[in-house]
Parts: sequence; C-alpha cells; structure tokens
Amino acid sequence: MTSKQAKPWKGRFSGATDELVELYTESISFDRRLYKVDIEGSKAHASMLAHVNVLSTAERDAILNGLDEILADIEKGEFDWSDTLEDVHMNIEARLTERIGEAGKKLHTGRSRNDQVATDIRLYLREGISELDRHLMSLVEALLDMAEREYDTIMPGFTHLQVAQPVTFGHHMLAWVEMLRRDMSRMQDCLSRMNIMPLGSAALAGTTFPIDRDYTADMLGFDAPSTNSLDAVSDRDFAIEFMAAASLVMMHLSRMSEELILWSSAQFGFIDISDTYCTGSSIMPQKKNPDVAELTRGKSGRVLGNLVSLLTIMKGQPLAYNRDNQEDKEPLFDTLDTVIAAVRIFAGMMPQVSVRRDAMYDAAKRGFSTATDLADYLVRKGVPFRDAHEVVGNAVKAAEQKDCDLSDMKLAELQVFSKAIEEDVFDVLTLEGSVAARNHIGGTAPEQVKAAINNCRDSIRS
Amino acid sequence: MTSKQAKPWKGRFSGATDELVELYTESISFDRRLYKVDIEGSKAHASMLAHVNVLSTAERDAILNGLDEILADIEKGEFDWSDTLEDVHMNIEARLTERIGEAGKKLHTGRSRNDQVATDIRLYLREGISELDRHLMSLVEALLDMAEREYDTIMPGFTHLQVAQPVTFGHHMLAWVEMLRRDMSRMQDCLSRMNIMPLGSAALAGTTFPIDRDYTADMLGFDAPSTNSLDAVSDRDFAIEFMAAASLVMMHLSRMSEELILWSSAQFGFIDISDTYCTGSSIMPQKKNPDVAELTRGKSGRVLGNLVSLLTIMKGQPLAYNRDNQEDKEPLFDTLDTVIAAVRIFAGMMPQVSVRRDAMYDAAKRGFSTATDLADYLVRKGVPFRDAHEVVGNAVKAAEQKDCDLSDMKLAELQVFSKAIEEDVFDVLTLEGSVAARNHIGGTAPEQVKAAINNCRDSIRS
Amino acid sequence: MTSKQAKPWKGRFSGATDELVELYTESISFDRRLYKVDIEGSKAHASMLAHVNVLSTAERDAILNGLDEILADIEKGEFDWSDTLEDVHMNIEARLTERIGEAGKKLHTGRSRNDQVATDIRLYLREGISELDRHLMSLVEALLDMAEREYDTIMPGFTHLQVAQPVTFGHHMLAWVEMLRRDMSRMQDCLSRMNIMPLGSAALAGTTFPIDRDYTADMLGFDAPSTNSLDAVSDRDFAIEFMAAASLVMMHLSRMSEELILWSSAQFGFIDISDTYCTGSSIMPQKKNPDVAELTRGKSGRVLGNLVSLLTIMKGQPLAYNRDNQEDKEPLFDTLDTVIAAVRIFAGMMPQVSVRRDAMYDAAKRGFSTATDLADYLVRKGVPFRDAHEVVGNAVKAAEQKDCDLSDMKLAELQVFSKAIEEDVFDVLTLEGSVAARNHIGGTAPEQVKAAINNCRDSIRS
Amino acid sequence: MTSKQAKPWKGRFSGATDELVELYTESISFDRRLYKVDIEGSKAHASMLAHVNVLSTAERDAILNGLDEILADIEKGEFDWSDTLEDVHMNIEARLTERIGEAGKKLHTGRSRNDQVATDIRLYLREGISELDRHLMSLVEALLDMAEREYDTIMPGFTHLQVAQPVTFGHHMLAWVEMLRRDMSRMQDCLSRMNIMPLGSAALAGTTFPIDRDYTADMLGFDAPSTNSLDAVSDRDFAIEFMAAASLVMMHLSRMSEELILWSSAQFGFIDISDTYCTGSSIMPQKKNPDVAELTRGKSGRVLGNLVSLLTIMKGQPLAYNRDNQEDKEPLFDTLDTVIAAVRIFAGMMPQVSVRRDAMYDAAKRGFSTATDLADYLVRKGVPFRDAHEVVGNAVKAAEQKDCDLSDMKLAELQVFSKAIEEDVFDVLTLEGSVAARNHIGGTAPEQVKAAINNCRDSIRS
Repeated sequence: MTSKQAKPWKGRFSGATDELVELYTESISFDRRLYKVDIEGSKAHASMLAHVNVLSTAERDAILNGLDEILADIEKGEFDWSDTLEDVHMNIEARLTERIGEAGKKLHTGRSRNDQVATDIRLYLREGISELDRHLMSLVEALLDMAEREYDTIMPGFTHLQVAQPVTFGHHMLAWVEMLRRDMSRMQDCLSRMNIMPLGSAALAGTTFPIDRDYTADMLGFDAPSTNSLDAVSDRDFAIEFMAAASLVMMHLSRMSEELILWSSAQFGFIDISDTYCTGSSIMPQKKNPDVAELTRGKSGRVLGNLVSLLTIMKGQPLAYNRDNQEDKEPLFDTLDTVIAAVRIFAGMMPQVSVRRDAMYDAAKRGFSTATDLADYLVRKGVPFRDAHEVVGNAVKAAEQKDCDLSDMKLAELQVFSKAIEEDVFDVLTLEGSVAARNHIGGTAPEQVKAAINNCRDSIRS
Repeated sequence: MTSKQAKPWKGRFSGATDELVELYTESISFDRRLYKVDIEGSKAHASMLAHVNVLSTAERDAILNGLDEILADIEKGEFDWSDTLEDVHMNIEARLTERIGEAGKKLHTGRSRNDQVATDIRLYLREGISELDRHLMSLVEALLDMAEREYDTIMPGFTHLQVAQPVTFGHHMLAWVEMLRRDMSRMQDCLSRMNIMPLGSAALAGTTFPIDRDYTADMLGFDAPSTNSLDAVSDRDFAIEFMAAASLVMMHLSRMSEELILWSSAQFGFIDISDTYCTGSSIMPQKKNPDVAELTRGKSGRVLGNLVSLLTIMKGQPLAYNRDNQEDKEPLFDTLDTVIAAVRIFAGMMPQVSVRRDAMYDAAKRGFSTATDLADYLVRKGVPFRDAHEVVGNAVKAAEQKDCDLSDMKLAELQVFSKAIEEDVFDVLTLEGSVAARNHIGGTAPEQVKAAINNCRDSIRS
Repeated sequence: MTSKQAKPWKGRFSGATDELVELYTESISFDRRLYKVDIEGSKAHASMLAHVNVLSTAERDAILNGLDEILADIEKGEFDWSDTLEDVHMNIEARLTERIGEAGKKLHTGRSRNDQVATDIRLYLREGISELDRHLMSLVEALLDMAEREYDTIMPGFTHLQVAQPVTFGHHMLAWVEMLRRDMSRMQDCLSRMNIMPLGSAALAGTTFPIDRDYTADMLGFDAPSTNSLDAVSDRDFAIEFMAAASLVMMHLSRMSEELILWSSAQFGFIDISDTYCTGSSIMPQKKNPDVAELTRGKSGRVLGNLVSLLTIMKGQPLAYNRDNQEDKEPLFDTLDTVIAAVRIFAGMMPQVSVRRDAMYDAAKRGFSTATDLADYLVRKGVPFRDAHEVVGNAVKAAEQKDCDLSDMKLAELQVFSKAIEEDVFDVLTLEGSVAARNHIGGTAPEQVKAAINNCRDSIRS
Repeated sequence: MTSKQAKPWKGRFSGATDELVELYTESISFDRRLYKVDIEGSKAHASMLAHVNVLSTAERDAILNGLDEILADIEKGEFDWSDTLEDVHMNIEARLTERIGEAGKKLHTGRSRNDQVATDIRLYLREGISELDRHLMSLVEALLDMAEREYDTIMPGFTHLQVAQPVTFGHHMLAWVEMLRRDMSRMQDCLSRMNIMPLGSAALAGTTFPIDRDYTADMLGFDAPSTNSLDAVSDRDFAIEFMAAASLVMMHLSRMSEELILWSSAQFGFIDISDTYCTGSSIMPQKKNPDVAELTRGKSGRVLGNLVSLLTIMKGQPLAYNRDNQEDKEPLFDTLDTVIAAVRIFAGMMPQVSVRRDAMYDAAKRGFSTATDLADYLVRKGVPFRDAHEVVGNAVKAAEQKDCDLSDMKLAELQVFSKAIEEDVFDVLTLEGSVAARNHIGGTAPEQVKAAINNCRDSIRS
C-alpha cells in the first residue's frame, strides 16, 4: 500500500512512498510543537526576502497574514495535521499555499528544511532554557528561605553515610544552592553559544539569492548569523551541550532526592514532607511515600539516557545533514520537559518540607561527631596532628566499648589517652562549639551561613 | 490547587495531593497500553481467589464479567481514563467497583500494585518479543532470498573501508543473517528467563491469604511462580536484558544501514533502493535519500539511551519497590516499539533493493583485491608466508606506480619480484578464481554460500 | 621522527610510520595479557596446518617448541615486548622467527590477525567467565549461609525506604541470591553463544589453503567453527553480551551495597561490617567507613560506561574488520577485572557482616509495619479489601497522633474504626504472626525461607 | 591475610585491613600522577599555616624543603610507592614524616583528604585543559592552512551521503574549524567555572583553625576559595562538564574521521593520507589503512563511556564525600589522555593529507549537483519555488534515463520542462558558477572562504 497525497519533492520519483515508510519517517507527531517558532522563522524569512526584493511587498503581506491565520488555527486546535506531509514545516507550508496560492510556493525560496529546522530548534530551546532558568531561580530562592530559617539548626554531617561532624542545616541547604547556581551558569553559557542563526545556510552550501542574513538574525533575536553553512545545518552541539547541562541539573536533583528520601525514613526522621507532596500504597494503609523525590531520582537516568542517544547519533555522521538527525528532537524535547517539570516541582515541594530539629540534634550527638574537634584541640595544645588523630581514635574505641559519647567521659578517663587534655576540653566537645568554630569562608558556622545567604541573594539579584 | 477525586490510599492522609504532583507522578498516559494484560492478570487472580475460597463463585463471576465489559469498552474507545487515578490498575479497578459494587473492592485481596505491575509488564513484553521474533524471521528470510539470488555475485570485500579481497554478495548477506540469528537466540533466552510470575508476592513479603500461585501461573502461561517476594517486586532484570538484546539488534541494523547508505551513494553505486523506500529533498530536486537506513542508524542511539536509563535507574535502589521504577516503562515500551518497527521495515525494504552487479564487479577489480591470492600462490610454491607477503607488497607498489592491476602486469614484470612466479599465476589473480578458492566452512566460495543457505533454512525451520 | 624497526606489512609502503602514530595505534600495552591464549591458538593452528600437509611435521614441531619456549620466557618475565611490533600477535610471531627461522614465517599461512584476535579474545573471555562463575558461586553460598543463620530474624521490609511490612532477614538474603542466580544463568547463555571459533575466517573471506576448521575447533575446545567469515572477523556480540550481563551483576552488587551502606549507618544500625573490610578517615578519628560497598556502587557506573563504549563503537562500522575494533579490548578487560574483583570481595566480606538482631526487631516495630495484616484480618471478617484499607488508614492516622503503634492501642480504640475488630486482632498485629502468616512459595515466613534455602542448594549442586 | 603496615587512621580499629580490601580500595596505581599538584597544594597549605601562625617558620621550611626533595625523588624515579598507604596523599605525607619528623605530622592540620584531593584534581585538570587548548589551536591552524590552499577546490557536498550541491573543499575544512572553535570556547567556560579552590573545606564542614583561604587560593592561582564546604568536597561537576565537552570534541573528530575514511576509500578517492599516518595488513600485502581515523572514531565511544560512568556514579550519592568518588579519577584521566592524544595526532596528520582535486571535481559533476541552481534560476525567471522544484525533478528523471547530466542536455530538451529556460541556463549549471553564486556570509563561494579564513585568524589571534 502506498500513500496517495503528493509529496513536495515528488518530481523525480516514479514510485510512491510505502505507507509503512511514511509512518517510520514521519516526525509530525513530535515536531508539531515547533509550530510557533516555525511560523516566527518563516515570517522573518519572508520579510527578509521582500527586503531584498525577491518577494514583492504584496507577496510578503499575503504570507505574513496567511501564517498568522494558521497560527491562530493551530492554537484554537483547528489545524489538521497530516502524516503524509511528514513534518511541521511541510504541513504549514502546504496549508499556506492552499490559503494564499502562488505566494505560498515562494516562501521556501532561498532556504531548505535543513536550515529551517536547525533555526526552529534553536528558537524553541532558547525559550525553554529561559523557562528553566525561572524555575531554577524559584528553587534557589526556596532553598535560601529554608537556609535562613534553619541557619543554626544542628544536624549530623555525613561522609560515607557515617556521622562525620556536626553541620548546620542552613549550610546544607546552601550546598544545594551552590549546585544549582553552577547549573544556571552553565545554562547561560549554553544559551550564548547557541544564539547563532543557521537560516540562510539552505541545504548545505548557502543560496544563490541575495539574502540579508543580518536582517533575519536581527528580527529573530539571534546574536549573529552562522559563519559556515555546512556546519550550520549539521551542527547539534547546542542540543548536546544543553542535554549535558540538564544531566547535571538532574544529577543534582537526584542527589537531593537521595537525601530527602533518607531524611524521610523512619530511621532518620529528620524531615516531614507534607501530605500534598506524598502518595500512599494500594495495599499498605500506613504508607506515606516520598514519591516526588523517588521519581526525580529515576528521571535523572532518563535524561542521561537521552544525552547518550544524541551523542551516539551524532558521532557516526559525515557532513552535512543526514536523516539520523531527525532523532535529535524526541530526546531533546523529553529532556527539556523533564528537567523543567522536576525543577518546578522541587521549587513547590521544598517550602512544604518541615524540619524535625530535635531529631537532627539527637542524631548529631551520636557517632562521635566532635572527635575531630578533640583532635584539633590537641593540636592547639602542641600535639602534632597525626599523633592527635591516633590519640582520639583510641579514645573513641574506649567510648564505644563503654557505649557512651566522648563528652560523657570523665576528664580522668580522657587524660588516659593524652596528658594534654584539660578541663576546657568539654567546650570543644559540644555540638554548638563545634559548628561555631568553623567560622571561615565556606565553613558551617551559623555566622558564615548568614553571610553566605546574603552574598548569594546579592549576586542573583544583580 | 489540589485534587478533588478520592485516592485509593486516602485513609491516613490529611492533605490532598497537589495537582502538579498528580501530573508529575501519573503514569496513566503511558501505562494504559497495559490494559489488556492487566485485565488478563486480574481475571486469573480472581479465579484463583475463588478457587481457594477467598471469593465466592458469584463474586468471581461478577468480577470476570465486569472486567470483560471494561475490556470491550476500552477497545471501543469508550473508556474514560483519569489522571487522578494515577495508573492503569487503579483506573480499571475503580471502574470495576463502579460497575459491580462490593465484589470489585475485593479484587485487590492478596495482591498489591507492586506484584501486579511486575506481572503485567512481563505479560506485555512476552507478547512483544513474540511479535519481534516474527519480524526477525521475515527479515532473515528476505536476506536468505537475496543471498540465494546473488550467491555468486562478486563484490569487493572491505576492511578499513579499503578493498581487501573479493567476496560474494550472497556471502555478505549471510553475514547479516548470522547477526540476526544470534539476536533471535538471545531473545529466546531472555524470554525463558522472564517467564516467571511475580503475582502473589504482594507488596514485598507475600500475603496472609491462602493463595495458590501455581494455579495462577498456569492460567497465565508462566513457567512457574517466582521464588522470592522481595526480589519479585523489585526485579527489572528481564526488562534490562531485553533492552540489551534489543540494543544489539539495533546495532546490527545500524551496521547494515551504514552499508546500505554507502552502497547507495554515487561513489559506490552498488545498489538501488526502490523509490517507495526513499524520500526526497525540499530544496534539491534531484535528491533520493536512503532515509530508512539513516533513521535506523539514528534509532540505534535511541535504544542504547533507553538501556542506559534503566540500568542507571535500577543501580541506586535499595530493595524492595521504589517509585523510581515507574520510569522503567517508557524506555521499555519505546525500545519495543522501535526495534519492532525497525526490523519490520527492513524486512519490507530488503526485497526492494536491487543489486548493480556490474558496479560491484568493477569495484572488486580495483584495489588489488587478489594480492593475497598471489601471496598464497607463492606459499604453495614454497615461499614462507612472511616473505611472500613482502614480495607481493613490492609488486603492488610497482603496479600502483604504473597505475594498473596485478593481473595487468606481464609475467616478466611479476617475475622481477619472485622467480617462483610462473604462467599459472594469472589463474589465481582472477576474481572468480579468488572467491572459488575459499571453499571451506564459512568461506566465501559460491558453493559454500549455497550450502550455508540450505543449512540455515534447515535450522530455522526445525 | 619515524620508527626504525621493520613492520610485517612494510612491502608496499614508502614512508615509515610516524612515532606518534605508533604510540596512538599500539595495543601491546593492553593486549599482551592475551599471550597465553594467543600461543594456544597458534599451536592449534600449526598442528592443523601440519595435519593438512601445509606444514611439514618438522616445521610444526619447530613451531610448537618455539612457542612453548616463548611462553616460558613470558611467564618468567624475560620477554621483551616492543611497541613497534604493534600487538601481542606480531611480538610473538617475530620472536618465533628469530628463534626458529624459516618455519616461523610460515605460521601465519591461512590466517590473519583479524581471525586470530577474534579467537584469542573468545578463549580469554571463556576462562574469565569461568573464574567469575566460581566467585558468584562462593558469594551465593555465603548468602545462603547467612540466610540459614538468620532465617527467622525479623527486620522491617521497606518500600520507598518507608517501613512496609516485617520480613525475615533470611528472606532478604535470598532475594540477593535470586539476583545472582539469574546472573549466573545469563553468563552461561553468553558462554554457549560465544564458544564458536572464528579461526579460519582469515582476513574476511576465508583462505585458499585446504584448512580443517573442525580439527582446530576441537583442539581449542570450541563447539564449532563459525559459519560466515565476514561475520566472524567483525562480530563482537559476545563481548557486548558479556558486558551487558556484567552490568547487571554490578547493578545487583550496587543495590546490595546501597543496603549495606544504609544498614551500617548510625541511623539504621542493622549490621556491623568487621574492621578488616572497612577503612578510616585521615582527619576524623572516629570514622569507620563501608568503603567496599561504596566503591562497588561506584564501579557499577564504570562497567556501564564500558558497555556504552563498545555498543557505540560497533554501531557505526560497516563490515568487515575496522580498526575501531581495537578499542574493544580495554573496556572488555576492565569489565572482566572489575566484576571478578567485586564479586570476589563481596564473597569475602559477607561472612564478616554481623547482624544486630535487636536493632532490626526494634525498627520493625516502628512504622506500623503490621497495618496490612490488620486490613487482611478485616477482609477475613468479611470487609471488602478496599474498605478495610481505608479503615486501617484511619486507625494509623489516629495511632500516629497518639504516637503509638497499632498494637499499643486498646481494643475499644480500634473498634472505633470497625466493629469487625475483636480480641483476636492482637495476634495478627505481632511481628512474628505477620511473617509466619506469609507462608506460601516465595513468601517471607521462616518455614518458607528454610525450604527455599534447601531448594536453592539442591539446584546449584545439581 | 592482613596488612602489616600502619594506617594513618588506625587508632579506633581493632582488626587489620584484609589484603584483598587493600587491593580493591587502593588508588595509588592511578592517582600517583597527581604527585606534582599534590606537592604544590601541600606547599601552599603549609605556607598558609605558617602565615596564620599554626606552624612555625622552621616547621614550614622543613616541610617545604622535604616536599621539594620528595618531588625530586619522584621525578628521578626513586620514590617507592606503597599500596598499603592507599593513595598519593598518604604516600607523600608518610615519606615526609620519615624525612623531617614531627613537622611532617603537622602538615595535615586544618585539612582532610577530601578537600585535598578535590584541590589536586582541579589543579591537574587545569593544566590538562591548557595543554588540550594548545593542540586544538594547532589543529585549527592546520585546517586553516588546508582551507587556504584549497579555497576554490570544488568537491561534491553531500547530504544523506548523496551528492547534493557543489561546495569548495576550503569551505568544508572551515566547517571543521567551526566545530573546534566551539570546543575551545566550551573548554574555556569549563576552566573558569572550575578555577575555584576547595582547600579549607576540610572533611566537609570547614576547620577550627584560623585559616586564610584567600592566601592559599592566591598562591595556587585559583580565582577564589569555594563558598560552601559540604559542596566543595562532594562536587565533581567540573570533571563531568569537562568530560561532556571532551565528548563533543571526540564526536567532532569522529565525524571528521568518518569523512577521512570515506574520502580515502577507492570509491571516493578524494584524498591520500601519507604512509606515515597509515598502517598495513598482516595478510593482505596491498592494504594501506586509515587507522588513525578509525581508532579515533572508536575512541569517541570510549570517552562517551567515561562520561556515562561519572554521571552515573555521582547521581546516587548523598552529600558529602563518599568513596564512590574515588572512581572519578580513572575515567577523567583516561578522557584527558585520550582527547589530547587524538587532537594532537589530528594536528599532525592533517598536513599529511593530500587532496586529489580532479577526483573531487569529477565526483561533483555526477549526481545532478546543480539541480538546485536550475530551480533557483527558474525562480529568478518568475516561477514559484515549489513549481520550479517540480520542474527540475522531472528534468532530472529524464536526464537519469538518458544517463547524462543536466548540463549535457540540449536547450530544447530542457525547455520541454519549462518555457522559462533560456540559453543562459548553462551558466548556472556549471560547478564554478554554482559555488561562486553562494556568495554571502557562511556561503561556499571561494570569496567567502577567503574572508572566513581571515576572520577566523583575526579572532583566534586576538
């Protein structure tokens, strides 16, 4: 069975396309979301063609009006997409010609689908990154608020998931902020590198028409036209760079999720996520699950998979455009949707997380979290660090056998391990003393947390 | 804003679910395709519950009839799926209770969504693999037909994309067959390992009801019930194993595509793919592109990406079920759809590929493809292989400078390089002589190709 | 600067190889580990050549003896590997000719490095999989021993890292066993599919010598010679299949690691890993970290990366051999080394894990782990499951507000939620009652755990 | 069997480390390459400690001298690395204490291996990126030279590997330049984002000593100290960002390789790579293979695999440092080595590539490469583009049947398809006319190529 409808490239073909082939090669089911930027690009192209006298003013106006009407139809849901017309570009152009006649057939003068789609994707992704940036900013602000509220809340800091040293929860939230700020900075770099216009590269070599690429670039808000036509139609670096940056965002959210899940467990019990952000079980009536965090952790795998797909797709292609490239869109769109949804829901969820300060504090008291403070104390008394480390290790072993904390031991018991220990040792063994003492740039002291919040707010508002 | 509709697990919750959370966590948009196997599983479960007297016969019948009606509705497109009900399981169960009342609420006795979905996916994938197997078989048969038609067609064999030795095109097609037969064998192994029933594992620990798992397994065509409930609800090995096997299928199709694209180029000109399997260009009127092969090459990246996603998703999860697992379905379904579509279209396309025998033959004559035959000839005359190799290397260098083939050189010219060369050398320098001489199991001789086709046909029909 | 030493293929070349190119293209730094299988393969090839009278008996004996001497030299560390000779094959062959003269130059008759290396890797991997299998078996046995010791130890079973239902620790260990048994089964399938001999395929088309491939296959323990020479030299399916199976092994170990790390944390406190399997901190004297588990979790990413590498490398190659394939060896060897080391160290570590039964039991009492049992109880009293689920959800909410467990509530308090609750309810709310009740194939009841251990032992010993 | 040598964290441990564990967890075999930056970091740290009076001047000097001597020993190959001391940091510190006594034990005051290794890797990678940048620049310059030499050499431009339109070879080389310039720009962004100093973050929370982090950052050439200690010790974004950027570099080199391999084939015959950059075959005496390009194509898979490894490793980790992170170094170092080697060898190889201008020109004449020019010609005569496209498609079909090019048809024959065609049509059907007409920014006209070369040279020299 073969397709009945005429193809825009039918001239040199004798046989009609097999229907199965149409289904296999169509992209309209997923590239139709480009309709708005496709029309925006076509309008700029038509305006430029008129500007250089390839189209008449009347033709241009017919095209602009026709495209506006099509846009309105699409947004009203009254546009009938056709698989046979392969993709969003041909669907819109065919409809335009139906509506306005001859002028419609002139729109494709001096361009090709190769530069058209490359332009569309950049326009689309440019908007997507802006939206993502807004949600990243909301999440950063939610975390800053949390950090401010909990700037001196003490919790155990972990390494190897073993209690390491006490930290402030505000400091922990700021660690998350740091990750996201790097993400925002990477997205900005990606955006500047991608804001270059392929249009005018035509199929691969440029066009014989006297086009004015600066004119079009200007209309479409690009920083400049691309400087090599072969590269411009085959380049998907911008999509890969975005997907790599998005993989980092998702990796960060996955790490945060890992912690939210741990902290929500009965064993940790550090936080409570409000019912509105949890779901239950079909069989176990008591369950309240941190699904958002779990799903996000899972979705980070998805976004990584998309990155692998596109890098793999690109690496085997000689220049210039090959049809493999059509497979760029689904992983790109899926990545964009996923990362925006994930960041957005985190921005909504974080204000719904309540902190169990007592549970955090109690946990910090277990696990000898101030052992390093004792070692540092000894150093200040003149014991070399490596020796102090060993002294404290022995003290911990003794305390463990007695099933008590270092601060629960008597002075005499401690002095067994080093004569340098004196009465003032108990000051450094408190949690409050421990965190307050780490009072330098980047340290966990409440004072530093406050300063860091202020610095961060200043910097993101500038 | 929060959702109005009641959740099946609402008992212990005070707050309603945020709407954004519903959208983020819903799976109904992609798991609804499980409706048929979900109903099949529920029917078997209800039958078993009646068999062990947990349900009455009347309750069972109400459930079976109710589910049949729902199935009919869905297939007629008259089922109204609800996002708020999260997934396919809850949608169907809620509708069942609407229809048949109390008995519907009893269906979930002794099971959980955890074992239910694990069972559904296995049933679904089992069917999918069977379908894939049929298409793989069609493609193998198409290739065997091509191999038979071209069993003695001579073409250049390449290594490093440099002409290496002449081979028969039939032999080349059989190389493709070998790849696909390994694929079929891997799919069979995957199928046997996965045909184990999780149902009865309930949430993670089994159930307190006196279930008869062998009864249910038997009804659903599983080889056995699973032997550990914790494992059964959290295991997705079968999906990953399938996706790895599918990645190999796609890698093979990608390699075939690479060759079809090369062979279709003006530079090679070895084959012609019929118009029905090609598409054109929006700007260049002369173009006829091997899109199916290009897209398939691209889609192999997609399937690899899916594999990466799921392996990554699974590796971070403690037992038993976590919500991350919900992200298993989209990559799995996408892989299944993609690999079936790709194999199917190749099975359709290959009979539409016509071979340009002259072009292949001419190409085989270039590139000194019988140089190895000359070396072997010298070995048979008593020259050690390494010395023979060097002699021929020098002869090739001379021929290259004269811009002629080895077979175009005069006997005296050849004898400059080795006295062992005699008049009979010209027999081994022909393409026909070269391929015919590789007459052992696995060799390229036409006789061997014929035998291999017969062996293959015998083996796949057995 | 260019290389001085003669290449085995130098005949047709005018220019010498650039030194940088030699370094870039050499494989001797990593393929030398194939020396033993390379010599084994060469000995079989030489024996076969003599068997079919291509070599004389004297030549064969000279070759066999020469190779044995080279093997001895290598194992004594007295073999001088040369980068200029590119790879293990050329290093050994060149040395052989140095030692035994003319006969050495005849060894390469009727073969090519393409079939030689494909044969070597299979031989090498075949041994590697056998070694892996032994370590997998040790680990399974260690887990069975642990399961036996702890067959009725009660712990909380988790879903979503929330307490779900009580399970036995023995049951949990058996879940790990199930994963590993699937791994062993996949490795066996991989082994049977790969035990096919490429040797005799020569460069890509077979050879003109009257070779007897069955003879060689038999000597080398292969099930059969390969049936298509083009496929045989370009096929790396077996390596990818192994790496996919190894990725599953590592994914399983990563999940186990995830649990070991959680269980070792102060918050869970379920297990203690002996000092011999932990390491400390350079700064925090109290730290004892589950490094083996953490590293293994990390190494699962490494093995996945290797799989991605090889699939990506293969998908872009036309037939037959291309130099890209040289990049197969490092990821393959690294995967083999990593998975063997990881399984082996787990087999050593698991007997060094001690279980804190009290901590597990206490944790199981928290989190309303028997709520499902109450729902099932109500079902047995005639309440439909969905209604029972809601009743229990409300009871849990009340208990949570009272900060007590369901079993701590008075009968009258429970009856507020359902009249069907009677005095016997407290039997089903105990942890012991809960696990004992899940007494069916695959369930967590101690009785089932014992039976499963026996079944598993029977099956792996058969 | 357990290890005899004392560990730096031995205090709290009773059992000695298992030897297998030592082997499994050691990193000295691959992190020793950090020795230079580790010593550089330690010297800056010691200087800072003296600056803030935690060390005496004498202690500082002893440390600085001791470290300098160790550096000299290492570079002379006289340093004895020990597995038991785990890593490069402990090896150097232990040796220092051996040499200088007490002062050595004080070096680790106020830092941890966590911030130490994070600092070391950044210092090491910073140098690595600089080296890479130099090689990228050399390659760009080699390509610019080639582009200049071949600015008006005509070749067929391909899309879908089908002849599309004529382009200039200089233009094609500039497309490669564009890819590499984006790579250089990404590397610069990566470098600025990573040039932040973790040192001072200690284990995870900062330190109780009065450190001056600006002082150390300044000595080590960092732009600033990091602003959050938890983040600083657990962050590996910079490594992933580098590996993603490196994957793009390798993807570009893989695409170039794909073309070099095609162009070197007998079928294309567009270029000749000098013997010094090719290798031969062990069996086929005539072979000359483009191994460097093939291996590079393969190595792009390797670098992608490394990226997948590290992203996967990071996504599952809660804060702060976990041992999984040790697995960051091998993929990072391997990526750095691979990308530097690949770029460097390309920079060496490209000047050794000679262009076969005639072969390129002849190929451009085949495949109706000027069909688009004919369509554009018709548009200029007033035919709407879509109609023109169809007219030319029909003309191509006719020419194909006659087995001639469009420019070989008679005017009357062409006029059958459109009356608008006149005598001047033959000007636009020439290859020279076609390329010259694409005379706008980014177009393939020789004039544009020259301008683009100049612009590029200006920009990279600025």
